[in-house]
Amino acid sequence: MTRLAEAETLNGGSTLDAAPLHGGGVDAARRAFPLAPSPWLDLSTGVNPRAYPLPAFAPEVLARLPDASAFEAAEAAAARAYGAPPGFSVVAGAGTQAFIDLLPRVFPARRVATLGFCYAEHAARWRAAGASVTQAQSLDELATMDVAIVVNPNNPDGRIAPPSDLLHLARRLSTRGGLLVVDEAFADFTPELCVEPLLAKEPDAGENLVVLRSFGKAYGLPGLRLGFALCAPPRAAALRAAQGPWGVSGPALAAGARALADSAWLRETRDFTAQSAQRLDSLLAMAGLAPIGGTSLFRLVESVHAARSFARLCSAGILARRFDERPSWLRFGLPAGPRDFERLAGALGVRSDV
Amino acid sequence: MTRLAEAETLNGGSTLDAAPLHGGGVDAARRAFPLAPSPWLDLSTGVNPRAYPLPAFAPEVLARLPDASAFEAAEAAAARAYGAPPGFSVVAGAGTQAFIDLLPRVFPARRVATLGFCYAEHAARWRAAGASVTQAQSLDELATMDVAIVVNPNNPDGRIAPPSDLLHLARRLSTRGGLLVVDEAFADFTPELCVEPLLAKEPDAGENLVVLRSFGKAYGLPGLRLGFALCAPPRAAALRAAQGPWGVSGPALAAGARALADSAWLRETRDFTAQSAQRLDSLLAMAGLAPIGGTSLFRLVESVHAARSFARLCSAGILARRFDERPSWLRFGLPAGPRDFERLAGALGVRSDV
Repeated sequence: MTRLAEAETLNGGSTLDAAPLHGGGVDAARRAFPLAPSPWLDLSTGVNPRAYPLPAFAPEVLARLPDASAFEAAEAAAARAYGAPPGFSVVAGAGTQAFIDLLPRVFPARRVATLGFCYAEHAARWRAAGASVTQAQSLDELATMDVAIVVNPNNPDGRIAPPSDLLHLARRLSTRGGLLVVDEAFADFTPELCVEPLLAKEPDAGENLVVLRSFGKAYGLPGLRLGFALCAPPRAAALRAAQGPWGVSGPALAAGARALADSAWLRETRDFTAQSAQRLDSLLAMAGLAPIGGTSLFRLVESVHAARSFARLCSAGILARRFDERPSWLRFGLPAGPRDFERLAGALGVRSDV
Repeated sequence: MTRLAEAETLNGGSTLDAAPLHGGGVDAARRAFPLAPSPWLDLSTGVNPRAYPLPAFAPEVLARLPDASAFEAAEAAAARAYGAPPGFSVVAGAGTQAFIDLLPRVFPARRVATLGFCYAEHAARWRAAGASVTQAQSLDELATMDVAIVVNPNNPDGRIAPPSDLLHLARRLSTRGGLLVVDEAFADFTPELCVEPLLAKEPDAGENLVVLRSFGKAYGLPGLRLGFALCAPPRAAALRAAQGPWGVSGPALAAGARALADSAWLRETRDFTAQSAQRLDSLLAMAGLAPIGGTSLFRLVESVHAARSFARLCSAGILARRFDERPSWLRFGLPAGPRDFERLAGALGVRSDV
């Protein structure tokens, strides 16, 4: 296999299929491009490159099993940060992925659909549980399903479904006993697009709704494995029971309790990510990679030369995200700062001072 | 409900039933005994009170998704520390509990038995998956099952099944397609009781065997959530697939890779725990609580006054471990040092300088 062919399969092979949109394929990229400069610049994820500045963990966080109070502290901080409506439950889990794994087991269903092309783990896990999974083209189409899944804003294209439309969909599904899963993994910097604030006014729409929130992406700490499910208390109890005791580590709970309470950091980081996303768009556009969407944590471009650009970047030790099903797309996470912007610009043959 | 009645149900209520032998009920104990001195001394777990001295985590451990190399480093250290035989696979998971959850899903079976009274989560999770679970009184009886579970040394009574007998059992089960699960959660300080060294000589016995190892207990870091399954490659692949990507946190993998390679610390700690266990036995015996077994991380006593002793200790802010099914038993974890020994002795009305 030529190096280019390897590069083209690199991010779409079976290993990465299991984890299609989180990237993390630097190990494989390094093997395929052994002459690329090290260290690699990994832009294949949608993780904030400026991590929340955590202090060292208190010894008891590691030395004790995470108890009920550790869970409660993280869940209370999440409830406030996300604006969970009164009466709604917040369940901590080991990353959004843990809930994506749990949902098909806890709320089994036959007919499942995602809204369009989205984070592939949803479909993969429902299929593994025996469900028939399709891609719906509209919220109306989703309303006929047993389980409807909307990633909002969507990964990878940033498509937005208005939260009021989602609550309307939740109510329609409710009448048939259906379930709506809203994955807000990339919604931290756009609270106005979240369903939580609306739910306070329309609590009846929440009964058959599960909202997933990711901690690691916006706070730049995905290694900790922390995410949350927001839902009505009976569903929360079912998720907790299936998760078993100590399903989340002490460090993850302690970090969540602290970082989610720091609204000043979130505001500053929103500005940083917005500016970085804008600069990234300009740089990519100059290189002929036209931005077609994204969120403030990643940008999506479309180009007939996507495969070639991907390989060119790999040769320069930069990993972007390819999509098997969309060969003309590339997704870029945010460079951490000027040096990474310059490196990306250099690899793309454009000026970085845009 | 009187305080004594509360104390008697305290460690056997429904919440703690789900987590029967890990203790961690200090929150509930504090509510039941609001006048007890604080902080509580938690002897209800079997966790080493002297945690492995970890340095601070490198930023990338938190800031990146745990990748294949992070898993490989922890699994390689575990393979060496546990003496995994060549050709055997080691799978990292979020604590032994994660594998106890996974086993019934990945290797479904109907007739399951544990060897006697043991850590209750095994039976609970197989039952939740629809299996019929009994307590076998001998290895012979276990040989007739679809899945046989032996906690070795046993929790809570320290009963030991010779590893050669376990490999013999594994072979007998194999002929019928059965599976043997050996839970070595408390075996770190008694490698001579482990099946791993024998497996190197009798690899055929390993095909239908899964060995579980806990990291948190011996290394005093249960908050990290790390454990391992050792088994033949096809079973390892099935466990990995069911676990999904990033099932273990970066800090847990980094801590495991480092601590499991530190054999000097393990040797020193073996001496510390052995001496502490001996001192604890003496102290409990003086208080009329006759030690009937245990491991070097916990001691089990039997007394007709167990309930009264439990309540008396609670009044002094000390939590031991009770067992609903064995009301005359109490289990004690190791005090961390002289002060904790003195506090326990004072609460039991005996001298601590034994």
